[in-house]
Amino acid sequence: MADPQEESKPLLSRVRGGSGRDRPEGAPACRSVQVGPGTTARRDLCLDQAVVFIEDAIQYRSINHRMDASSLWLYRWYYSSLCQWILSFTIFLILFLAFIETPSSLTSTADVRYRPVPWEPPCGLTEGLEALCLLVFAADVSVKSYLVGWAQFRKNPWLLAYLVVLVVSLMDWIVSLSLVCHEPLRVRRPLRPFFLMQNSSMMKKTLKCIRRSLPEMASVGLLLAIHLCLFTMFGMLLFTSEKDAGQDKERLTYFRNLPEALTSLLVLLTTANNPDVMIPAYSKNRAYAIFFVAFTLIGSLFLMNLLTAIIYNQFRGYLMKSLQTSLLRRRLGTRAAYKVLSVTAAGEAHPEGVGVKPQDFLHVLQKVQLDSDHKQAIMEKVRSHGGDLLSADEFQELFDEFDKRVIKEPPPRPEYRSPFLRSAQFVFSHRYFNYLGNFMALGNLVTICAFLVLDADVPPEDRDDFVLGILNFVFILYYLLELLLKVLALGLRGYLAHPSNVFDGLLTVVLLVLEISTLAVYRFPHPGWKPEMLGLLSLWDMTRLVNMLLVFRFLRIIPSMKLMAVVASTIMDLIKNMRAFGGILVVVYYVFAIVGISLFRGVVVAPGNSSLAPANGSAPCGSFEQLEYWANNFDDFAVVEGLFRAVVAGVVCHLGQPVSGSDSGELPSQVGPPQSPAVPHGGLGGHLSDDGGALVQGCPGGAHGGGADGETEPSPAPAAVQVTSWCALPAGARCGLGTDTDHGRRRVVAPKRFFPLDRTTGRA
Amino acid sequence: MADPQEESKPLLSRVRGGSGRDRPEGAPACRSVQVGPGTTARRDLCLDQAVVFIEDAIQYRSINHRMDASSLWLYRWYYSSLCQWILSFTIFLILFLAFIETPSSLTSTADVRYRPVPWEPPCGLTEGLEALCLLVFAADVSVKSYLVGWAQFRKNPWLLAYLVVLVVSLMDWIVSLSLVCHEPLRVRRPLRPFFLMQNSSMMKKTLKCIRRSLPEMASVGLLLAIHLCLFTMFGMLLFTSEKDAGQDKERLTYFRNLPEALTSLLVLLTTANNPDVMIPAYSKNRAYAIFFVAFTLIGSLFLMNLLTAIIYNQFRGYLMKSLQTSLLRRRLGTRAAYKVLSVTAAGEAHPEGVGVKPQDFLHVLQKVQLDSDHKQAIMEKVRSHGGDLLSADEFQELFDEFDKRVIKEPPPRPEYRSPFLRSAQFVFSHRYFNYLGNFMALGNLVTICAFLVLDADVPPEDRDDFVLGILNFVFILYYLLELLLKVLALGLRGYLAHPSNVFDGLLTVVLLVLEISTLAVYRFPHPGWKPEMLGLLSLWDMTRLVNMLLVFRFLRIIPSMKLMAVVASTIMDLIKNMRAFGGILVVVYYVFAIVGISLFRGVVVAPGNSSLAPANGSAPCGSFEQLEYWANNFDDFAVVEGLFRAVVAGVVCHLGQPVSGSDSGELPSQVGPPQSPAVPHGGLGGHLSDDGGALVQGCPGGAHGGGADGETEPSPAPAAVQVTSWCALPAGARCGLGTDTDHGRRRVVAPKRFFPLDRTTGRA
Repeated sequence: MADPQEESKPLLSRVRGGSGRDRPEGAPACRSVQVGPGTTARRDLCLDQAVVFIEDAIQYRSINHRMDASSLWLYRWYYSSLCQWILSFTIFLILFLAFIETPSSLTSTADVRYRPVPWEPPCGLTEGLEALCLLVFAADVSVKSYLVGWAQFRKNPWLLAYLVVLVVSLMDWIVSLSLVCHEPLRVRRPLRPFFLMQNSSMMKKTLKCIRRSLPEMASVGLLLAIHLCLFTMFGMLLFTSEKDAGQDKERLTYFRNLPEALTSLLVLLTTANNPDVMIPAYSKNRAYAIFFVAFTLIGSLFLMNLLTAIIYNQFRGYLMKSLQTSLLRRRLGTRAAYKVLSVTAAGEAHPEGVGVKPQDFLHVLQKVQLDSDHKQAIMEKVRSHGGDLLSADEFQELFDEFDKRVIKEPPPRPEYRSPFLRSAQFVFSHRYFNYLGNFMALGNLVTICAFLVLDADVPPEDRDDFVLGILNFVFILYYLLELLLKVLALGLRGYLAHPSNVFDGLLTVVLLVLEISTLAVYRFPHPGWKPEMLGLLSLWDMTRLVNMLLVFRFLRIIPSMKLMAVVASTIMDLIKNMRAFGGILVVVYYVFAIVGISLFRGVVVAPGNSSLAPANGSAPCGSFEQLEYWANNFDDFAVVEGLFRAVVAGVVCHLGQPVSGSDSGELPSQVGPPQSPAVPHGGLGGHLSDDGGALVQGCPGGAHGGGADGETEPSPAPAAVQVTSWCALPAGARCGLGTDTDHGRRRVVAPKRFFPLDRTTGRA
Repeated sequence: MADPQEESKPLLSRVRGGSGRDRPEGAPACRSVQVGPGTTARRDLCLDQAVVFIEDAIQYRSINHRMDASSLWLYRWYYSSLCQWILSFTIFLILFLAFIETPSSLTSTADVRYRPVPWEPPCGLTEGLEALCLLVFAADVSVKSYLVGWAQFRKNPWLLAYLVVLVVSLMDWIVSLSLVCHEPLRVRRPLRPFFLMQNSSMMKKTLKCIRRSLPEMASVGLLLAIHLCLFTMFGMLLFTSEKDAGQDKERLTYFRNLPEALTSLLVLLTTANNPDVMIPAYSKNRAYAIFFVAFTLIGSLFLMNLLTAIIYNQFRGYLMKSLQTSLLRRRLGTRAAYKVLSVTAAGEAHPEGVGVKPQDFLHVLQKVQLDSDHKQAIMEKVRSHGGDLLSADEFQELFDEFDKRVIKEPPPRPEYRSPFLRSAQFVFSHRYFNYLGNFMALGNLVTICAFLVLDADVPPEDRDDFVLGILNFVFILYYLLELLLKVLALGLRGYLAHPSNVFDGLLTVVLLVLEISTLAVYRFPHPGWKPEMLGLLSLWDMTRLVNMLLVFRFLRIIPSMKLMAVVASTIMDLIKNMRAFGGILVVVYYVFAIVGISLFRGVVVAPGNSSLAPANGSAPCGSFEQLEYWANNFDDFAVVEGLFRAVVAGVVCHLGQPVSGSDSGELPSQVGPPQSPAVPHGGLGGHLSDDGGALVQGCPGGAHGGGADGETEPSPAPAAVQVTSWCALPAGARCGLGTDTDHGRRRVVAPKRFFPLDRTTGRA
């Protein structure tokens, strides 16, 4: 994230760009309004700028980009959903290529004993796709760089790295093609996840946070290393004697030499070989257990938790800080839009002074990309305001609507004339009808489970699915009936307005299709009816699997239970927080897999030609052969996943927790006015000068500008801090981050937590 | 923890004790001072009461106990270190009995194949010890109950439970003795950990917190259960076919019937059987991996983290709340002491009004049990104050000294006359001499490790320890020399003032003793010198083991590194937080072990009489016999530990983290003025009336009393909240915990975080 001072300067600023290169031509147009032929064009530009500023505010984007007419068009086009969707799809495509490229993962099994020769994509196929993707990325990076301007581009490490990665990928691609796809090493493949990271701001933040906590993690790592080495030496000293059988067995098995002893204890740290490693010595004398207990207690329980505690603290602080930066961005965007709009209004003679004309704002809002519910809510609020100019305060308040959840009215039910239909409508839209449906679904589940348990001890070839087939048929008929009756009662639009109904309806349709095909293939159930196996699953098994999804009908009850509501809200926060972390994990996994493939491909070879079922019993216990780990190899991309999961599970068990435990949810959920920790409640009383450039120039000096703003206030009491400069937010933010300005000291907000102080108590 | 209202009423209060039973005779003595023969006695009682109140404040104890002269004596005697030490030792003893009692753990091995018949303690030995312990507990519970009074006793569930457990234990003990120690069931043994819990306030708090988060944990548990059942059913549906070899193998191994499938997936949730469980199906078709990946992702990563997040939030809130309660207790104790002392001063005519005479306070402080450093610091502060009466503010401020760390001046170095000795003193007290010592220790460690690594591949009987023996001898001589030179330079007292020197000195002495005995037993090292094995370790090995402790010399460098300092402080917090949690774990383990022994004792039997080394190869892989888990059984107390560790490791990995991650350290470390979250900085400007009873009666109404206190303030501006009632703390605390009083609303501290607001800014 850039410095707030930097962020607050869009490229229309006059102070910026001592070199003429950065100053777009159209920039000064919106600064002074003259009556003349260019007025309409200038007004339009101002409105367009306002639209972009508001969109920036909504999306928490920096307003630091070019603001001339053509750049604005390019900017809006770049952030349109189509462009962003194309970009996302390209990223998905280039990552997905790993499954198809040599060594392709398109075999049904990964077991080296049974695997057929995988399909080789012809040279040029994946390379062609890749070239397309790289072209899209090249366009992306050039548009982005143009929009932020050369000065910003130079200072943005992500954009620079983007360019470098792109150039390296292109060069590697050319080498690859010139060697007709027989190059020994593909540099560009492990670089691909960078495109994913570059495109997600949350992932960038998480990565920065991880990077910042690296020193602390390294020091705990050092402690762990000391702990491990110390105990390795202790262990090797303990298990050296030749007379004691238990000691000698322990030594030969786990402490034979330094690398082996280190490995044994490292694995013990993950508790994977927990009792085994101490059994030989422990069998001999129980006092040896003290060594292992001490090691586990200090290592697994104490040092690992220490690691978690440290990472947790780092993450919490950092997420809070990034929350502030995002709020600052929203403030900047809103204020800039206000400034630009009030310039347009200033041309006309208004008695009330400076402000935004509601019709201007409505006009701008029409153009803003925003979901219709929120747009509607804000428009209504503006209309209710009447024809007066909107002050900066009121303007800012309008944007609080973004964080409120809009509750949609369900569409009206169909009106029936016939009393029979009316009563049917009442019955089938009643919640007891829902309960009946849930009850039927429960019955369906219970029958499936009961038959599963009953059939468990019967060999598959002797099973008789007649009764279950009939029951299933009946249940699916009931679901169909339920669907139709609900549509009758609520109308099709009313039915689809509830997501739960959509889920039920989809499930019913899928079940119906499966049931009809089952009937078509195996005919109607009769005694001794037993659907045959086709492929992995018979149609019949599939029906039963889909039936299990009925469980989700019951999960809907959860949020209505009070206790479960707490849990459910925690789940939602968790999902939001884990998303960025999950992205980082995907990146790590991807690189791990690609590097693993290039290093270890073909290391695992099939066991001789003797037979496909080797004499398993001859292999020693715990060996690769005995455990039949043939499918765990690095021979193609999809297979590494199985290996990796074992590693990840342990890591995430520790690392995932800081994220989950963190109480600072992602931004949108916490920005709402009641909880917002960084927004001073005093409001934006101060008005800045009319100059659009000055607006953003004034900000960096906001620490002092706050005092100067007091002149527009009726009672200029020196200690009455009712007037909070709009620019005080960045000042306060910086103050909280270390620097202690005069302004920050006078406002007595505890500087590390950003409290909404009610300033009215402070008045004389 | 009792209600703050309840806590604030010591038994000297008049309002309390409508029944005459509760009112001690001496209580009213301290309320009004009359000139007469009883004055000196009353004054002494007041001073004694002050001593007890101050001790209560220091130890965060409730002041809610009897205050007459004899009770005060009993109270101080009960909380004397000797009594508390006896109590702790008794608790240790009764818990330790489990190792000696039948089935005793006094065999060297737990392996059923080699274990001799354990020693049977004669009937009456452990029972006698137990009777002693129970008598101590009986005395403890009666003293405690007497001190808090009947009304409190009735309402205190811990004391009631203490009594019940004691009675049950005594009855069981009588039954046991009357059956000559052949009773089938010992009820009192699983009850023993209660005595440990009852005696630790932190453990009681942690337990209460665990109990409070049970509902949320149960709901996550329900989600986990649903998840598990759903996937079990899915799995059983997936792996049913008879044709597919992979599917069938998977079915036969892991999904044969409902209990087996549930177990397989439950174990997969702990990732213990992670790749194995999916290998048969995955070998056949990689698509099956999706099932297992989905299960692990949802279960291990998502739901387990959810559990952590919820427990974490519960713990944090609760620890914060208990922090407030403890601070309240300290405030109450200090204020009560102030009140009692100011009553003694009020008798004499003082022009300044109400306050505490410094000489009274010094007199009281002499009697208070407190470490001498803090006592010294407070006394100096009082003396520097002069002869004026101490106001409530100043009195309270004195107690901030408790939380400051006192830095001791090192004792003066010996003064030598000879210039040679002076220069020697300079050289050997220089830090470079320390570095040289560390360097030598490092060299010692390196030689030991080098020889260990070199000798790893040599069979133990061929090893030659000649060089290492000589080197070790040289190093130990150096340590001895270092010790002597340092004592010369710093003087013996100066040397022992540093804990690091104490450690070094002890280590040197131990090494010296070991080396001398080694030399005495094996004579001086010569080529081919190889110390023999005696018992578990040869003296020689022991010397090397002790040498490894030299590593701790290097750990001292850690706090001087900046990054490591953060880590080290986190470690200290962690230890404090984990202590109570560790106590709970010990309790759980103890009960688990005792119950396990009574249930499963003798279930594991030795494998036939064939041979002590059975044909291991014939057992299937992964079975009890193949893994030689003979030592893992429930046959005596010490052995269950090995089993239990495996269980605990997983649990603590998840449950331990909320405690470790919590940023609310235990009380003493966080009470210091700069961080103290609950103490309003405004000070204790208001003076309450002189009545000792009213002092504590006034508190519950503190929400309004705060305003009334303003009358003693020179400028009674209504909104100037400079004056903070002392009673505002409980009011604010309660406000933060949910109730919203007028007072709490006017003071605009964000009620959930307790910020030290600087009120001076709020003045006109």
